Amino acid sequence: MSQAPLDLKALMTPAAQGGSSWGAVQGRPVAISFGGGLPDPASLPIADLAAAADRVLRRDGAAALQYGGLYGFEGLRDLLAAKVRADDGREVQREQIVLTSGSAHAISLACFAFVNPGDTVLIEAPSFAGSIRAIRSYGARLVSVPVDAHGLVADALESTLRDLKAKGVRPKLLYTIPNFHNPAGVTLTMERRRRVVALAADAGTLVLEDDAYGDLRYDGEPIPSLLSLDQYGAVIKLGSFSKILAPGLRMGWAVGQQEAVAAMVSVRHDMGVSPFLARTIGEYVGAGKLGPHIQGLVSLYRRKRDLMLALLGEHCGGRLRWTVPEGGFFTWVELAEGIDPDRLLNAAGDEGISYVPGPAFFADAGGRRHLRLAFSYASEPQIEQGIAALGRALEKAR
Amino acid sequence: MSQAPLDLKALMTPAAQGGSSWGAVQGRPVAISFGGGLPDPASLPIADLAAAADRVLRRDGAAALQYGGLYGFEGLRDLLAAKVRADDGREVQREQIVLTSGSAHAISLACFAFVNPGDTVLIEAPSFAGSIRAIRSYGARLVSVPVDAHGLVADALESTLRDLKAKGVRPKLLYTIPNFHNPAGVTLTMERRRRVVALAADAGTLVLEDDAYGDLRYDGEPIPSLLSLDQYGAVIKLGSFSKILAPGLRMGWAVGQQEAVAAMVSVRHDMGVSPFLARTIGEYVGAGKLGPHIQGLVSLYRRKRDLMLALLGEHCGGRLRWTVPEGGFFTWVELAEGIDPDRLLNAAGDEGISYVPGPAFFADAGGRRHLRLAFSYASEPQIEQGIAALGRALEKAR
Repeated sequence: MSQAPLDLKALMTPAAQGGSSWGAVQGRPVAISFGGGLPDPASLPIADLAAAADRVLRRDGAAALQYGGLYGFEGLRDLLAAKVRADDGREVQREQIVLTSGSAHAISLACFAFVNPGDTVLIEAPSFAGSIRAIRSYGARLVSVPVDAHGLVADALESTLRDLKAKGVRPKLLYTIPNFHNPAGVTLTMERRRRVVALAADAGTLVLEDDAYGDLRYDGEPIPSLLSLDQYGAVIKLGSFSKILAPGLRMGWAVGQQEAVAAMVSVRHDMGVSPFLARTIGEYVGAGKLGPHIQGLVSLYRRKRDLMLALLGEHCGGRLRWTVPEGGFFTWVELAEGIDPDRLLNAAGDEGISYVPGPAFFADAGGRRHLRLAFSYASEPQIEQGIAALGRALEKAR
Repeated sequence: MSQAPLDLKALMTPAAQGGSSWGAVQGRPVAISFGGGLPDPASLPIADLAAAADRVLRRDGAAALQYGGLYGFEGLRDLLAAKVRADDGREVQREQIVLTSGSAHAISLACFAFVNPGDTVLIEAPSFAGSIRAIRSYGARLVSVPVDAHGLVADALESTLRDLKAKGVRPKLLYTIPNFHNPAGVTLTMERRRRVVALAADAGTLVLEDDAYGDLRYDGEPIPSLLSLDQYGAVIKLGSFSKILAPGLRMGWAVGQQEAVAAMVSVRHDMGVSPFLARTIGEYVGAGKLGPHIQGLVSLYRRKRDLMLALLGEHCGGRLRWTVPEGGFFTWVELAEGIDPDRLLNAAGDEGISYVPGPAFFADAGGRRHLRLAFSYASEPQIEQGIAALGRALEKAR
């Protein structure tokens, strides 16, 4: 018998060999974080959730603590079906909705169900770093389509699909964030939404519509979702309680054609989400707490957004350009000529602030001269101190 | 533009096309279930968990409700490291432990990290149906090694490894359930444990030791785990709170070499388990509640096991043979000659009882003349009624 230790590297899949970059974007510890897409800690409805959890356990303890099925607690799925009817104008049944461990998990399940190694997946450039990582781990060939001030560029999508078709390639998925884009902070226009759905359906490509931030709109009127415009069964819409309630509940959902949702469920191996958590959220939502909570978040985040953007003008004007998001958590910032991104990152660390550098959001090269700032997590005093510190860092990075 | 609905089947991966059989083993609704591996509902420590959840939210609400990292709450991982030191006699660090959505999720992550499509994975025959399903969905070639009254047959493992080596095949994983096997109810002997670890290490094969039931021993002395015997870094041990606390918390863990655990973490896309749930369990365990709770479960399940086995002798003797499990939830039952398995399943349904037919636990053909009975979930009066009903069903199935 050999006494040599097992050579783990030799056993690993390509996904595991290439998959350890996620933690790297967090950077060194800092006093003020504009990095992660975290909700405002003071906004978390701790007491209401504690009351809901307590009611659920005392009333439905045994049901909440046993297995809860692969689709998840029916009561919460019915509440979500009502939300889809209200938000997206679509009649959906509970069978078209599956609860997942956050929308990140839903993205992973969609890839597991639809993406073979070597399949092509269309993603936006930029796109959410965690999603790029998940899609890539399934061995997908990622093809980027640019995002501009009006969201995914439909003309570019059309030409990309045409080029791929000429090569005999049919993309399996298009992953897109139409509302308050992460990281770009932009929102897809109505006209483009119609084109994106029609183009994808024409190509035989499923659309993964990630709408984690859709309820957090600070200006303007809601624009119909891709799901609401879909006449082809081509759209799976993903939602999450992470931004509108609490990430620590790890609860998201996917809604779409029953057959598409069933395919995702068929490749989940976690025996479903926690019925305790799903029932706790159901209790909270059923008591009418979510709507007023979201209204409070909208006021809070609008104020924080306005504060950050005003301070950017005051401290960083001329050295940075930024998007004005109508909602969500992020503004996407471009460095003026003469600002060195590596020196800025170092100087920002020295000043005790963090952000996510742009390259994290691109599957290919790109983003060197961009960065993402989250205004959601830092307190208002921290935003004041932090953007002033960013101004000083910019001075040092020239 | 085409108006045809999207052809989803054509887009699906092999995993999704083949993955929908899980729900099918549940069967029709019945009055008395000997089917699923569910804990006794009356045993669930509802009040203590409610108190722990409430303390966590009121004391650590913001930390419990934000993201909790990919490895999971450090406090619970430290408690688990202490458990590994006590149970397995191994000094492990927190970095060697990852929290997962039940041990089923850990099995899935291990496959994602180590199993490429076409790779060979060794599994026991029989083995847990959910694990077979998960491993298969990664495109593994499953090779079965038989289980007898003393657990996995080490001679058969040796000859299987020799045959595979002769063909140039190195299995990536061996998935095994040494204690109170699901479904076979048997326990791997000490002598075989040593051989299994050495054989796997010699072959360069990782061992996934599934020990979801290990704390629930009703007779005899604990036998050292495969992890505790591993000098090669070849074993990843999987644990779960589902059977010793509550499945609805969806909390399991994996412990092994740091590099192996890191590989599993690198392919998880769910942003980690709920820190609220991990902290709630940590609060419960930290308050010293788990040990006494497990002691109570051991008394309860010993009684239920003894009751079921005695009743099998009374009502089914001569028509069935069964294993006498030293722990866990299951006895594995073989039909005597002359009993037709399909007629028995129908007759049992007519009598209002359910069990899982044997073929669910085999990757290849097999198990036609077996079935699994869980004594964990049904109440003692239900066990009395249900096994009497099984006796009547056997009468009809000859």
